[in-house]
Amino acid sequence: MNINEAIDKFYALQSKMSAYGHAMSLIYYDGATTAPKGTAQNRAHSLSILSEETYKLSTSDETVSLLEYLDEHKDELCEKDARAVYVSLKDIKEMKKIPMDEYVAYENLMVEADDVWHKAKETSDFELFRPLLEKIFATTVKFAGYCAPEKHPYNYCLNKYEEGLTMEKCDEFFAALRERIVPLIKRISEAKQVDDSCIKGDFDELSQEKFSYELMKTIGIDLDHCGLGTTEHPFTTSIGSHHDVRITTNYDRSNLSYSMFSVIHEGGHALYDMNSADDLAYTFLDGGVSMGIHESQSRFYENILGRSEEFVSFIFPKMQECFPEQLKNTTADEVYKAINLVTPSLIRTEADEVTYCLHVMIRYELEKRVVGGELEVKDLPSEWNRLYKEYLGVDVPDDKHGVLQDSHWSGGGIGYFPSYALGSAYGAHLLHKMKETVNVEKCLSEGDFAPINEWNREHIWKYGCLKNPNVLLRDALGEEFDPTYYTDYLEKKYSKIYNI
Amino acid sequence: MNINEAIDKFYALQSKMSAYGHAMSLIYYDGATTAPKGTAQNRAHSLSILSEETYKLSTSDETVSLLEYLDEHKDELCEKDARAVYVSLKDIKEMKKIPMDEYVAYENLMVEADDVWHKAKETSDFELFRPLLEKIFATTVKFAGYCAPEKHPYNYCLNKYEEGLTMEKCDEFFAALRERIVPLIKRISEAKQVDDSCIKGDFDELSQEKFSYELMKTIGIDLDHCGLGTTEHPFTTSIGSHHDVRITTNYDRSNLSYSMFSVIHEGGHALYDMNSADDLAYTFLDGGVSMGIHESQSRFYENILGRSEEFVSFIFPKMQECFPEQLKNTTADEVYKAINLVTPSLIRTEADEVTYCLHVMIRYELEKRVVGGELEVKDLPSEWNRLYKEYLGVDVPDDKHGVLQDSHWSGGGIGYFPSYALGSAYGAHLLHKMKETVNVEKCLSEGDFAPINEWNREHIWKYGCLKNPNVLLRDALGEEFDPTYYTDYLEKKYSKIYNI
Repeated sequence: MNINEAIDKFYALQSKMSAYGHAMSLIYYDGATTAPKGTAQNRAHSLSILSEETYKLSTSDETVSLLEYLDEHKDELCEKDARAVYVSLKDIKEMKKIPMDEYVAYENLMVEADDVWHKAKETSDFELFRPLLEKIFATTVKFAGYCAPEKHPYNYCLNKYEEGLTMEKCDEFFAALRERIVPLIKRISEAKQVDDSCIKGDFDELSQEKFSYELMKTIGIDLDHCGLGTTEHPFTTSIGSHHDVRITTNYDRSNLSYSMFSVIHEGGHALYDMNSADDLAYTFLDGGVSMGIHESQSRFYENILGRSEEFVSFIFPKMQECFPEQLKNTTADEVYKAINLVTPSLIRTEADEVTYCLHVMIRYELEKRVVGGELEVKDLPSEWNRLYKEYLGVDVPDDKHGVLQDSHWSGGGIGYFPSYALGSAYGAHLLHKMKETVNVEKCLSEGDFAPINEWNREHIWKYGCLKNPNVLLRDALGEEFDPTYYTDYLEKKYSKIYNI
Repeated sequence: MNINEAIDKFYALQSKMSAYGHAMSLIYYDGATTAPKGTAQNRAHSLSILSEETYKLSTSDETVSLLEYLDEHKDELCEKDARAVYVSLKDIKEMKKIPMDEYVAYENLMVEADDVWHKAKETSDFELFRPLLEKIFATTVKFAGYCAPEKHPYNYCLNKYEEGLTMEKCDEFFAALRERIVPLIKRISEAKQVDDSCIKGDFDELSQEKFSYELMKTIGIDLDHCGLGTTEHPFTTSIGSHHDVRITTNYDRSNLSYSMFSVIHEGGHALYDMNSADDLAYTFLDGGVSMGIHESQSRFYENILGRSEEFVSFIFPKMQECFPEQLKNTTADEVYKAINLVTPSLIRTEADEVTYCLHVMIRYELEKRVVGGELEVKDLPSEWNRLYKEYLGVDVPDDKHGVLQDSHWSGGGIGYFPSYALGSAYGAHLLHKMKETVNVEKCLSEGDFAPINEWNREHIWKYGCLKNPNVLLRDALGEEFDPTYYTDYLEKKYSKIYNI
């Protein structure tokens, strides 16, 4: 084998993995959006075979030899290829530590768990979901033991979504947030409350869908390459490459803001995925690099941009066009205040910016304890409810509005949640940096996202997985990440809204 | 290798092929229904890799040795396994005659052609589609030369959709139809005409969709395993196995009957696919055996059942529920007559039962001549228009309503069309036989499809591909197929409607 042959083989391998990825993402997306409801087993059958093929292809002796050969010759590779070899070799070495039958069984478990979680959530029946969740946690711990026996298993989980993240860093980060956020919430609770009745009412789904497309266009999403579906829990997925991305939302007829900010949130994910440099398509480097960076983009669009006074003033006339009856006696300022109402609540995805991180901390505490063997899955609902009372002061009426609300655990996403809080904080620091060269307020008030998107493209999006998340973030910020920008941002914004 | 190991390997092979089939059908279905419109190239990239994998897996030395070993030991196999080995060995031997790169290039061509055909049809621009159609016809002829050099290439095409079918048989069959149908059309044209204004008007898509689900349930489709989508051209596809089937329709706001009978037609395909015996799932024998038999089911449900006086009288109150304003001054009898209006027209899928076969004959004549080298693709539009004038007496205003109307050619379905006419005629003979034990009129007037479906399940559906289509049909009929039942059926039904 010479180096050129090896590179050709490596590109063929990456293409093939993209095609399998296309198939598997689409089967998942179809299951969540379109497939008839009795077809989960049929999908599990196909997915187990495709994931077995993927596993075999990734871990075959031929693949490993190819990657090792290329790694030995990395000085002869361009930066992109060298990075793709490094990333895949690292992943594959980890993957090979998991026996294939267990890997495939886990993939099957995910399909079944997704189906059962939907049913359990619908009927608020945790016991239905419990045996699957127990298997998911047990398998996670087992895999952590295979892949990183030297680490605490929950550090292995955190690391899957944000390279280098540890419980120590999380504890420190969350402590820094808590120190500033808890007093802020207290001051807000004592101030004159905001009225959010203007975004409550009856907003039919068709008009909400029309408004969703309007939002997608406004924030700069190319609708020729990004679709919108309806699912129980909103998500974003790439289908085969960054040339085809799908976001989903869920319409709440009684609340205009739920889908509005889901769409902008998922739209932020989509913009990041869709704007990898074109030559990264069909390689291992296509799409976002970590969930922390991903959430920095989604929560940036959702909150920092989407919930800003300037953006609301721009988008309000379009909202009125979609809902002329419902919004005829409302002003942009009333909507701005309504969508920024701060109030302790039950559902994370509907939480305001200020209390949001407390929702994340609860999940972090629970995951850490279950993975660490200090809490049993059967006790999750009661501990969930206890922590909601302690952190947010709310009573959880049932598991649908409690421990069953998120889809992450049924999809194996243990260790994911901290990314939301980290991403939110990254976003505030990125905003600070962006403002050095972009007049963000002016862009938002004119609905002109091009300069904002251009900054993100140049500093974040185009790199795909070319840089480590830490390096990517430091390069973009020009300094080390500092969560103070986030707490400063929250204090400034909400002091003004609540006049405190 | 011993026989049990070989059987296990054979089942694993069939499962794997089902999973690839799942992926490819779903990518196609997604492209037709949901995918953002700029993503065709992305699908082509993945499909070319998946079809290459499928080709390699099917034709590998390992697979061929396995199948040959099993074929040599067929006496030790159960009937089902022996048949699956026979069918797959036959297909693979043919497939191996096509060089892999040409096979994959053809799969890619289909994806591109589907995209371009949509655009060409939209703008009525045959020239846009012509280069692709030329490649499709040329490749078809080339593949015919590889696979069946001893046959006329068009006989190879016909045989792909109905085993044993030849131009000679088609000519004879179409001549028999023409002999009875042409005079019938003439007599109808001289009679007092039927008024179809009651099914014309403004029927919103949402109500049509609601009515579509009502129809699917009525004819006995299990909605837990069958979905309904919207596409340019209605079709049916299985996703991975008979446990997940999707039908599609297209809503014409101005004409209630278009989607109604598309849904019942595709519903007939779906019933056939969904009712393979359960142990055929994930084997090569799952789903319908040939397009002729498939169309015998779809056109049976659409026309013989769906357009019957008894069914219309049963379904009419449900139609009125969905369209109370539009149908308030209409009777079931008026609807029955309107949906059976006989009139020479431009669009095959909207044609009445009597003139339908003439549309098929035109396509048959054209395909035969292009494949035989007697007609160039560039001359298809003018020849199409000439034959429509000659056979049906209508002037084709543009290619959208002419040569670009059907999706079959863009999908490589050359040789498919005769199946529609054959299937229609099979259906009338099957009805004759069914009536020996089932009171079809009573079932229809009560909306009770169970006895009808049970007959079809026992005589057709459950066999999947276990029997050759010829054998399946003869066993179901208890005698050789005779097209006279079809022409008798048409004469009797339409003489009564037109009082001639």
